[in-house]
Amino acid sequence: MDSFSATAERSMEISAAVAKHPERFRVLTGERPTGPLHLGHYFGTIRERVRLQQAGVEMFLVLADYQVITDRETTAHVRENVYSAVLDYLAAGIDPERTTIFTHSSVPALNQLVLPFLSLVTEAELHRNPTVKAELAASGRALSGLLLTYPVHQAADILFCKGNLVPVGKDNLPHVEMTRSIARRFNERYGKVFPVPDALITSAPEVPGLDGRKMSKSYGNAISLSMTADETVDAIRRTKTDQDRRISFDPEHRPGVSALLTTASLCLGIDQVELAEEIGDRGSSALKDATATAVNDYLAPLRKRRQTFAADAELPRAILDHGNRLANMAAEVTLAEVREVMGTIY
Amino acid sequence: MDSFSATAERSMEISAAVAKHPERFRVLTGERPTGPLHLGHYFGTIRERVRLQQAGVEMFLVLADYQVITDRETTAHVRENVYSAVLDYLAAGIDPERTTIFTHSSVPALNQLVLPFLSLVTEAELHRNPTVKAELAASGRALSGLLLTYPVHQAADILFCKGNLVPVGKDNLPHVEMTRSIARRFNERYGKVFPVPDALITSAPEVPGLDGRKMSKSYGNAISLSMTADETVDAIRRTKTDQDRRISFDPEHRPGVSALLTTASLCLGIDQVELAEEIGDRGSSALKDATATAVNDYLAPLRKRRQTFAADAELPRAILDHGNRLANMAAEVTLAEVREVMGTIY
Repeated sequence: MDSFSATAERSMEISAAVAKHPERFRVLTGERPTGPLHLGHYFGTIRERVRLQQAGVEMFLVLADYQVITDRETTAHVRENVYSAVLDYLAAGIDPERTTIFTHSSVPALNQLVLPFLSLVTEAELHRNPTVKAELAASGRALSGLLLTYPVHQAADILFCKGNLVPVGKDNLPHVEMTRSIARRFNERYGKVFPVPDALITSAPEVPGLDGRKMSKSYGNAISLSMTADETVDAIRRTKTDQDRRISFDPEHRPGVSALLTTASLCLGIDQVELAEEIGDRGSSALKDATATAVNDYLAPLRKRRQTFAADAELPRAILDHGNRLANMAAEVTLAEVREVMGTIY
Repeated sequence: MDSFSATAERSMEISAAVAKHPERFRVLTGERPTGPLHLGHYFGTIRERVRLQQAGVEMFLVLADYQVITDRETTAHVRENVYSAVLDYLAAGIDPERTTIFTHSSVPALNQLVLPFLSLVTEAELHRNPTVKAELAASGRALSGLLLTYPVHQAADILFCKGNLVPVGKDNLPHVEMTRSIARRFNERYGKVFPVPDALITSAPEVPGLDGRKMSKSYGNAISLSMTADETVDAIRRTKTDQDRRISFDPEHRPGVSALLTTASLCLGIDQVELAEEIGDRGSSALKDATATAVNDYLAPLRKRRQTFAADAELPRAILDHGNRLANMAAEVTLAEVREVMGTIY
C-alpha cells in the first residue's frame, strides 16, 4: 500500500472517529489574507469547517498574515483583507464562540516555536516540500528565507494549539507530514509536548475560476463572497465563452462554459453534465443567466448575514481581539511546556 | 579601497565617536551558553564589553540559548551554563544596572521578528554566510533550518533593541552586513523602524587553548573563569609541552609552549617573546609555574567577586528576571512599530 492510500485509509478512519468523538479533536486551519474570500474558498474549505464546527470539533482558524509576504514584497491591504475574511467566516456560519479566529502575527509565543522547530528539520527536507517548490516557481523570484521555511511556520501554527487534525487537500499532505516529523522529533528529543497531528483529506470539489483556471483574485476570475448580486451578474456576464449554442461540459476545449457549469451545479447541488443537458442549445447567454441566478440564490442568505455583520464596523476587531487573546493563552501555555522540557526556564 | 579596509576605517571613526558620545550608542553582544566562559571569552570580548560599559555605552547582552541547538541536538546543562555566565559577567565587571543581560528564548517578541526578516533575505544570501559554512563543516551534520537561518536570528537579536553598534572580530563581519541589509530593506519596504547598525571591529587578542588550538570547552583546553586556583594549576600542568629546555615562542612547532607564553603574557600585560627570553632555559616546568601564577594572580580579584556573587543562589535568576523584563519591553515596543508600518494591527 503506497503512502497516499495509507493516508486516505487513515483519513476515513479519522472521519469516523470525528463523527463519534468530535470532542477529541482540535483542528487548525486557515488561509493567507491576500484578498477577498471567494467561492473557491467556500466550497473548498469554509463549508467543511462549518460542518466540523457544527459536529462539535474545536477549531483554530488562522489568518496567516506573515505568509502573505512569502510571495510578494508588500503587506498592502492586509488589514482590509483580514477584516473582510472575518466577516466572510461569520457569514458562512463560523461561530467565534466555538472557533478561535486569530491573526498569525498577533501571537509571539506561537512564532517563537519556529526557532526550536527549525532545528528539527534539515535544509534538504525544506527543499523537498512540493508546495515550496510550486510557490517558488509561481513567484518568479529568488527563494526567500521565509518561503523556504514556510512548512515550519505551518508546523508552529498547527502545534502551538496542539491541533491534532488538519483538513487538507492531498496536495498539502507534505505540510502535515513535516508537522508530524517535527512533533515526533521534538517529543523524542526533549519530552512529550505535542500531539502528532493527522491529516483529514477533504474531497472538496475544486471550483474553477470563470476562465477555467484556478479561481484566484489575482487572475480576476473569482466570485467573491462579498460581491453584491449585481457585481456577481457582471462578473459572470464577462466570462469568455464561445459561439457554440449547444452547451456541453468540456473543460479542455470550452473552459469558460465548463467553469460556469461547475459553478452553477455546485450552487444548485446537481451534476454539471445534467445541467448542460438541461440548458441544451439555449447558448452561453442562458447559461450565464442560470449561473448568476444559481450563485446569487445560493449566496443570498450568506450575503444577507454578512451585511448585518458588516453594519457593525467594530465587529471584526472585536472578534480578533477575542480570538487573539485565546490564541495567545494557548501559545503561552505551550511555550511554557516547551521551555520546561528544553530546560530553558531561568 | 576594499570592503574590509573601508570597514576598518569606519570602525576607527566609530571608536572615536563612541569615545566622544557614548550616549549615542546601543551595543548588542553576547554568546551561546554552551559551557563555562573562559579566558578566550574574557580577553576576546568580555573585557571590551566592560570597557564600553564604563565609557557609558548602553549594552544588551544576549545569552543565545536557541543558538545552542544550531550545532547539537540537546539543550542539556543550558540553564547551568546560563547562570554560570551571569556570574562570570558580574565578576568581570558587567553591571546589570547599566547592561541588560537576557536570554534569547525569554523574549517572544524578539523571536517573532525572525519571520518578517526572513522574507527580506534570499536562501542564496543565507548560504553565502561564512559563519554558517564554517559551523556546518565543523558540525559534521546535515544543514538544519536553524543553522541556515542563524544570521537572521542574529539580526533580530541586534535590531529588536535597536542596537546600532556590534563589536565583532573581522570573521563575523558578514553577520553585521546581513543585519545591515535586513534593516535597510525593512525600512525601505515598510517604513523607517530600524537603525542600520555599525560593526565595531575589535582587535582583541586571540587566546589559544592550552594545546595551541582555539580555546574551547569542547577541546578540553580551556581555562574557565570559574575554575579554582588549584584547578587552574592542574590544567596548566597537564599542557603538553616538549623536552627543549630553552623556551621560545613558536606556535607552529611548539603549540603548547607558545600557548602558555601567550596566556601568561596577556595576564601579565607583557610581550610573549620577552617572556620567553625571561624564562630562558629553565624549561617547561618553570614556564608552567609562571603561567599558573600569572593567570591565578590576574583572575584572583574576578574570582573573589564571583565567589561572593555565587554565594547568593538566587542572584542569577534575579538578574535575568530583571534583564528579561527590560528586553521584553524593548522587543514589544519595536514589534508594535513593526506592526504599525506593516499594517498588521487589527
